[in-house]
Amino acid sequence: MYKVKVFVTLKESVVDPQGSAATKALQKIEFPEVKDVRIGKFIELTVEKTEKNIEETVHEMCCNLLVNTVIEDYRFEIEEVGAQ
Amino acid sequence: MYKVKVFVTLKESVVDPQGSAATKALQKIEFPEVKDVRIGKFIELTVEKTEKNIEETVHEMCCNLLVNTVIEDYRFEIEEVGAQ
Repeated sequence: MYKVKVFVTLKESVVDPQGSAATKALQKIEFPEVKDVRIGKFIELTVEKTEKNIEETVHEMCCNLLVNTVIEDYRFEIEEVGAQ
Repeated sequence: MYKVKVFVTLKESVVDPQGSAATKALQKIEFPEVKDVRIGKFIELTVEKTEKNIEETVHEMCCNLLVNTVIEDYRFEIEEVGAQ
């Protein structure tokens, strides 16, 4: 079994309205020291071991469904766990 | 300056409709080996150094705004960067 962590972030060139709103809100309530906030997705996958290459599989899953590669970047960490 | 990475995940006991939908979609398109998907938030903060304790500050920011502590858990990593 594999536990995969996928970190999806907006590309640098893409405006992050959610992040900007969070920045202003934090600065307003009590945290003027906050300079920037970028909000992305943190995806945790549980994947059964198969004969397929797990790295390629995760790339395919990201490109096919989990990530909008036009505006988002991604990276991932794979951990093998348990017996099977 | 600090670069802070905050990982926000739904508590185990909380149903994740987005994650379930992603699981079914992945299984349907080509990835039957996917057993579970949990989708959370990955927040990147840029915070200026002040006399305040950065760990406490990040906890406060999470509890006050960034995290819904009723249904979400969070953890974070702090990295000091650059001069100031």
